Amino acid sequence: MSFDRLIAKIIEMKNPTVAGLDPKLDYVPEYLRRSFLDEDGETLKAAAKAIFRYNQMLIDALCDIVPAVKLQAAYYEMYGHHGVKTMERTIRYAKLKGMYVITDGKRNDIGATMEAYTAAHLGSVSIGECEYEPFGADSLTVNGYLGTDGISPLLKVCKERDKGIFVLCKTSNPSSGEFQNLLIDGVPLYARMGDQCEKWGEDTVGEYGYSAVGAVVGATYPEQLVELRKRLPHTMFLVPGYGAQGGGAAGIAGGFDENGLGAIVNSSRAILCAYKKEGCDEHDFAGAARREALRMREDLTSYIHIG
Amino acid sequence: MSFDRLIAKIIEMKNPTVAGLDPKLDYVPEYLRRSFLDEDGETLKAAAKAIFRYNQMLIDALCDIVPAVKLQAAYYEMYGHHGVKTMERTIRYAKLKGMYVITDGKRNDIGATMEAYTAAHLGSVSIGECEYEPFGADSLTVNGYLGTDGISPLLKVCKERDKGIFVLCKTSNPSSGEFQNLLIDGVPLYARMGDQCEKWGEDTVGEYGYSAVGAVVGATYPEQLVELRKRLPHTMFLVPGYGAQGGGAAGIAGGFDENGLGAIVNSSRAILCAYKKEGCDEHDFAGAARREALRMREDLTSYIHIG
Repeated sequence: MSFDRLIAKIIEMKNPTVAGLDPKLDYVPEYLRRSFLDEDGETLKAAAKAIFRYNQMLIDALCDIVPAVKLQAAYYEMYGHHGVKTMERTIRYAKLKGMYVITDGKRNDIGATMEAYTAAHLGSVSIGECEYEPFGADSLTVNGYLGTDGISPLLKVCKERDKGIFVLCKTSNPSSGEFQNLLIDGVPLYARMGDQCEKWGEDTVGEYGYSAVGAVVGATYPEQLVELRKRLPHTMFLVPGYGAQGGGAAGIAGGFDENGLGAIVNSSRAILCAYKKEGCDEHDFAGAARREALRMREDLTSYIHIG
Repeated sequence: MSFDRLIAKIIEMKNPTVAGLDPKLDYVPEYLRRSFLDEDGETLKAAAKAIFRYNQMLIDALCDIVPAVKLQAAYYEMYGHHGVKTMERTIRYAKLKGMYVITDGKRNDIGATMEAYTAAHLGSVSIGECEYEPFGADSLTVNGYLGTDGISPLLKVCKERDKGIFVLCKTSNPSSGEFQNLLIDGVPLYARMGDQCEKWGEDTVGEYGYSAVGAVVGATYPEQLVELRKRLPHTMFLVPGYGAQGGGAAGIAGGFDENGLGAIVNSSRAILCAYKKEGCDEHDFAGAARREALRMREDLTSYIHIG
C-alpha cells in the first residue's frame, strides 16, 4: 500500500529508471513492422500486433536491468481497441517478467466515475460470479484538478491491493507554468497540489518513508524538484522529461533524498529509438535499447547514490 | 470548427440535452444481460456486447428527440479492450443515427502525447497507405492543467475537421472547489481556466457566437454558471450534474444566453435507469428512457427558451 515494491526493485537493480513504452508505429523497426502489416494488411489490428511484439522484445532486453515500465495510454488508444488490447497484453507480459508497471493515463473524474477508472486500471470488475482485472497495472498517473473526491476511490484500492498513484504536480512541458505556477497566497498551485499528495498519502507510508501517493515532477524544472523534495518528504516522484525533453541527470538529482531514493526517472524515446540514434542494424533494436538503458543508469548513478 | 453543428441540432430538436451513456453492467436490464452472459459466459467480452446492445436500443429510442450522446470513457475501460470496442461501436452507431457524439475522457498530457490522444479520439491515424479514425467522436472533454501546449494539438484538429473540446472549468463534484475555487489575485482558478478557453477558442467562433472550445461547468454550482456565462461569451458549456447529482433546471438556466443557447445539459443515470425508477417492465427500458428524456426536455424548456 506504498511504493515499497517499486523502491525495493530500484535498490535491487541500483537503477532509478522507468522505461517509457510509448510506441508509435514509426518507432517499430521496418523489418518487424512489415512482417505484421504484410500478414494482416495495413490495419489498426496489424499495427497493434506489431507494437506488442516490439514491446515484448524491449521488455525481454530490459527486465533484468530496469525495474519498471510506464505505458503511455495515448499511444495505445491511437490504435483503437486493438491498441488497448496491446496495452493489456504488454502490462501482463511486463508483470510476468517481474517488472513494476505504471499506466500513464492521467485519468481524472468525479468520485463515482473515478471508481470505474480505478476498477479498470488498478482494481477488478465482477461479471456475475467471475472477477477480472481489466488492465492490472501497479500504479496509475492521475490529475488532481477535481480534488479529493476524485482521488478517494484510488486510495481505497491502493490500500486493498498494494497499488500506487502519481498525481500531476509540476509537469515537464514548456507551458506547465501557465496554471501550475499561479500563486495562491504566495504558494504556487503545483506546491498546493503537492501538499494534498502528502495528505492523501498520509496513512499509507511504507518502510522507505514514502506513501502510495506519488507526484509527477518534470526533469525540465530542476529548481522545483529540489523545492518539492524538501516540501513533500513522503511523496515519491515520477520524473519525466529526461533526455529528449532536455532534463539532465545533474538537475534530476535534486529530486532524490539523501539515500538516493524518492524518485524514478522516465525515458521513452531515447530507449525506444536507441537503434536509430546508434545507427546499428535494426534487428538489434532491443540490444540498442538495453545499451541506452545501461548508459542512462550510469549517467543517473554518477549523481545519485542509491541505498 | 465551432459548435455550430451541435447547436443547430439543439435548435432543431428544441432540446439542450445530451444523454450520458455511462453504462454499468448493472444498469442493463436482466433479460438483456442474461441473454449475452448465457451465450458467451460471464466474461468481459459478453458484458461489453450486452452493453453495446443496450446502447443501441437507447440510441434508437432517443435519436429523434435528443441531439447528442456523451460516452464516459471510464465505463467502457472497465471492461478492458472489449469495453473500448463497445465505445467505438457505440460512437459509430450514434453518428449513423445522426447524433452528435461527445467522448468524455478528460484527457490531458504534454503536447506530443496530446497529438496521440487527438488522433485517437477526434482525428485519424495512418497505417501505411490507409487512414483510420480510431474513435471518431465529434468532441472530447479535456483537462487544461498542463496549459496551452497540451491543448494546441486539439485546436488544430478542431479547425481541420470541425470538431470541438470541452475543458474542465468548474466540475460538478462536492470537492471541486478544493483547487478550482482557489483565488489568484482575487480570481478563482476556474475563471482563469475559463479565460483561457476564450483565448484558445478565439479564432474558431461560429455563426451562433460560440467557439470550438467549450467548458465543463457543473449544474450543482448555479452561481458559477451565471458568473461564467457572463464572463465567457463565446464558450459553450457542457453541464453535468442535472438530476441524480442534484442540479435543478431553474439553476441551470443561468448557464444559457438570452437566446436559450450556449449550454447543453447532461443526464446519465436518470435516463439509463428510468425503467427502474418508473417500475415498468424492463423490456420497455428504452421506452422509459425516452419518456424521461421528454420529461427532462419539458423541465429544461420551461426555464430555457430556445431560439
